[in-house]
Amino acid sequence: MKKVLVSGIKPTGTLHLGNYFGAIKQMVELGNSDAYESFIFIANYHALTTVKNRNELIQDTFDIACAYLACGLDTKKVSLFKQSDTPEVHELTWIFNTAITMPFLMRAHAFKDHEAKNKDVNVGLFDYPVLMASDILMYQADIVPVGQDQKQHVEYARDIAGYFNRAWGQEYFKLPKAHIVEGVAQVPGTDGQKMSKSYGNIIPLFGTDEEIKKAVMGIVTDSKAPEEKKNPSENNIYKIHTLFLTENEDNELRNRYEQGGLSYKEAKEMLLDAILSFVRPLREKYEYYQSHPREVEVILSRGAEKARIKTVTTMDEVRGIVGLTK
Amino acid sequence: MKKVLVSGIKPTGTLHLGNYFGAIKQMVELGNSDAYESFIFIANYHALTTVKNRNELIQDTFDIACAYLACGLDTKKVSLFKQSDTPEVHELTWIFNTAITMPFLMRAHAFKDHEAKNKDVNVGLFDYPVLMASDILMYQADIVPVGQDQKQHVEYARDIAGYFNRAWGQEYFKLPKAHIVEGVAQVPGTDGQKMSKSYGNIIPLFGTDEEIKKAVMGIVTDSKAPEEKKNPSENNIYKIHTLFLTENEDNELRNRYEQGGLSYKEAKEMLLDAILSFVRPLREKYEYYQSHPREVEVILSRGAEKARIKTVTTMDEVRGIVGLTK
Repeated sequence: MKKVLVSGIKPTGTLHLGNYFGAIKQMVELGNSDAYESFIFIANYHALTTVKNRNELIQDTFDIACAYLACGLDTKKVSLFKQSDTPEVHELTWIFNTAITMPFLMRAHAFKDHEAKNKDVNVGLFDYPVLMASDILMYQADIVPVGQDQKQHVEYARDIAGYFNRAWGQEYFKLPKAHIVEGVAQVPGTDGQKMSKSYGNIIPLFGTDEEIKKAVMGIVTDSKAPEEKKNPSENNIYKIHTLFLTENEDNELRNRYEQGGLSYKEAKEMLLDAILSFVRPLREKYEYYQSHPREVEVILSRGAEKARIKTVTTMDEVRGIVGLTK
Repeated sequence: MKKVLVSGIKPTGTLHLGNYFGAIKQMVELGNSDAYESFIFIANYHALTTVKNRNELIQDTFDIACAYLACGLDTKKVSLFKQSDTPEVHELTWIFNTAITMPFLMRAHAFKDHEAKNKDVNVGLFDYPVLMASDILMYQADIVPVGQDQKQHVEYARDIAGYFNRAWGQEYFKLPKAHIVEGVAQVPGTDGQKMSKSYGNIIPLFGTDEEIKKAVMGIVTDSKAPEEKKNPSENNIYKIHTLFLTENEDNELRNRYEQGGLSYKEAKEMLLDAILSFVRPLREKYEYYQSHPREVEVILSRGAEKARIKTVTTMDEVRGIVGLTK
């Protein structure tokens, strides 16, 4: 039997190159792999902890679905669905909540120190690791792909599975393993910091040619003259450009920086070409899904149907174990 | 339109006279009243915060259903159901959790002081007031019957309704009112303390004649001789006995205590007669339901069907408001 892979994706609003090279690309590759039975959910319940605007949440949820489809997620192999189509996760969260202690959950947080405990955060943010554990354990996941910095999330899911299994004296939940995702690029933004919507330094993934051009032309550089030699490793234009190059192309471009004679204007124009050649086919597919919402809905519904076979089965079994049903 | 009344009852294990005169009696009267559309749920999700034994939870849930039916709850007028047949309450709890703050929920608890925050309680006990709010608000309840000391619970439900309405800018949830239950007797146990399983001082409601006799004969008294005058107001036998008497009978009994000549043995025998006359018909019905579990299941299923018309409708509307569905 194939190993079960589970992952959640955040409906995050305007997507950018950082989202693509930092998450979408790897998730699409993993999901499409024949090695796993994959469940990928759009985490709109989690998004409620920060988004209190219905239209924004609906739009972001739809957009991220279109994005993953445009980027090549093969929904014959992957069940892609909205988290809100598996409300069973909340019943499981409650049961987990009755089995874990406050000190355990507080350790999962900046709640560690007394001051932090009184911060005006919402209770959803506090209980978030438990919902995340439900999302994972519901599918008896073997593998949860995470970045190096998110290993802890899977640890909590393992711990919570252990709490449940001990509380009711049964080895029911499988302990999932974190799968550290390889090839994740830390994409710099136009100002050299990590690309992030909150820094206002993004290059949009599905923007118009004009929007992308504006962002690329705004990349911050020093004021070296065209003829001066430049160190590509210290250059924001190059650092973004390298994401799109083969090894040979990359060597060639490094040479041009190092030899001198490459103006930043020309470097930006070359980068713009590279980005546009890359994003145009994706954008075309994205626009196709954007203008065929019914098709996206059908894909998500089919994904949800497959997911619910798991969630409903797990909850039936859990209800039996804890005594909610005979 | 009738006002909506919602109440939860705990599946508590062996029931005693204290449960009857302190809760069941009033709840049956209120539920059967034509003034309300009543939803009474057996709070088995809440019970999970303390019970981690499947057979115990199943048995307690069944027993409390039999008890309310035996005590005359009219399920033509009241929807009696298991809380676990309305799992929608957890989805609503999550949404509420994202709208309320940690300091708000901590104030609902002994979590107020720093020491208490680190107590080894489970997270279910912490989030309990939110689940309770969901249980109430789900039905757009007007009225929640509570004892004088539980008014605070309904205050939290009102506050949480307010948090939701403000967060999503809609006056969606009605603010429920606490209905202080009248005629609640503080029933003393056989040792004079409040009757409670945890004190080991109960007179069982559905015990055998022998079990009830044993409990009654064990009532603690002073060592006054039969001929001595006695103050009924200071007497545990009398204090329990008075629950079963008309005003005339009560006056007559007080006289006998005050005049002297009533031995404790005789007083206990009189009390035993009164209890047995009272409980025998209830016990008969209780045993009927105990031996007809299928009938009880059907009653609870019908109650659940009526409840779910409300919970599913409310959740559909709430999902639309927050943007989980269009």
